[in-house]
Amino acid sequence: MPRPSRWDDVVAAAAKVFRERGYDGASVEDVADEVGMLKGSIYNYISTKEDLLLAVVRPPAERLLREMRDLEAADGPAGDKIRLMARSHARVIEDFLPYVAVYVQELAGRQTSDEWMAMDREYVTLAERIVEAGMEADEFRSDVRPRIVALSLIGSLNWLTRWYQPDGPESALEVADQIADLCLRGLSVRPATTG
Amino acid sequence: MPRPSRWDDVVAAAAKVFRERGYDGASVEDVADEVGMLKGSIYNYISTKEDLLLAVVRPPAERLLREMRDLEAADGPAGDKIRLMARSHARVIEDFLPYVAVYVQELAGRQTSDEWMAMDREYVTLAERIVEAGMEADEFRSDVRPRIVALSLIGSLNWLTRWYQPDGPESALEVADQIADLCLRGLSVRPATTG
Repeated sequence: MPRPSRWDDVVAAAAKVFRERGYDGASVEDVADEVGMLKGSIYNYISTKEDLLLAVVRPPAERLLREMRDLEAADGPAGDKIRLMARSHARVIEDFLPYVAVYVQELAGRQTSDEWMAMDREYVTLAERIVEAGMEADEFRSDVRPRIVALSLIGSLNWLTRWYQPDGPESALEVADQIADLCLRGLSVRPATTG
Repeated sequence: MPRPSRWDDVVAAAAKVFRERGYDGASVEDVADEVGMLKGSIYNYISTKEDLLLAVVRPPAERLLREMRDLEAADGPAGDKIRLMARSHARVIEDFLPYVAVYVQELAGRQTSDEWMAMDREYVTLAERIVEAGMEADEFRSDVRPRIVALSLIGSLNWLTRWYQPDGPESALEVADQIADLCLRGLSVRPATTG
């Protein structure tokens, strides 16, 4: 589909509008107003509002999934992979904050469409497999369900979209390192001294 | 405000509809259809759609905050408080799943209104204070930011609303215990062996 020269602005405006008003509460007209175009001009390049949603969420979602597939398939200790997963997630959040916020708000873990449910499931499964590999290698303790570890970590990372401020005291990468570190120490084979 | 005898059904229908279509995408008419009442009958008891949202999210949000205030103020080790916080969160999710899902979807960490931002901030601050108290008592290691620990744990717990299935293999309480355990081992003063 040919794209207007202002296509990137349109997608950025859609991300802002969907994040603020919710996808269901926002109209193509709201996006047009935000970017200063006529609604009709936007409809020259998309068929439905959903095309705008997909344009917003596809780049971060596909990048996350691609990086996660590579990570899971690579050699190396599971602990390093968990760290790299958290960093990849944080980088995507830094690079695409409003876009990822829309993804988390509208799609992640919500049963909206088969395609998105499949992407979601794959991401969770890849994280789960990394945790399982760490358990099999006796790198991680194995008295916790890998799926719960994976979803707990993904929840913490996705939650960044609700509180992380790019102009705050830490970079997303520093926050991700602390989250990964907590998780890895939580998986440590040594017994805890607290609780 | 007087409430119809079917008020609880109306609120349950609103939770279902807001969860599925998003608050902004759902109308009072959708809620009326879901519960099998006329829109006008619902408007006899509410003034705006927002009244329905508040009826959905207030009970779980207020219970969580009340329990958290009590916990933070109580005596006892910080580790026990973290465990009890996760259990309180899980119980509220079990008792009010669609309601909490709407809260997480529409309000938590989103800058919607001063009132909700204040509740949110208080909940995070109480969690943060528990973590700080654990660090001050040398119960937890202190080389991680308490705010990141608090938000990471809250993110994991809130994320339950996107994946937890009441008919799944674990109760919400069992999942919460595993999440709290991971967090507490992550905060353990012993060095980790992995990574």
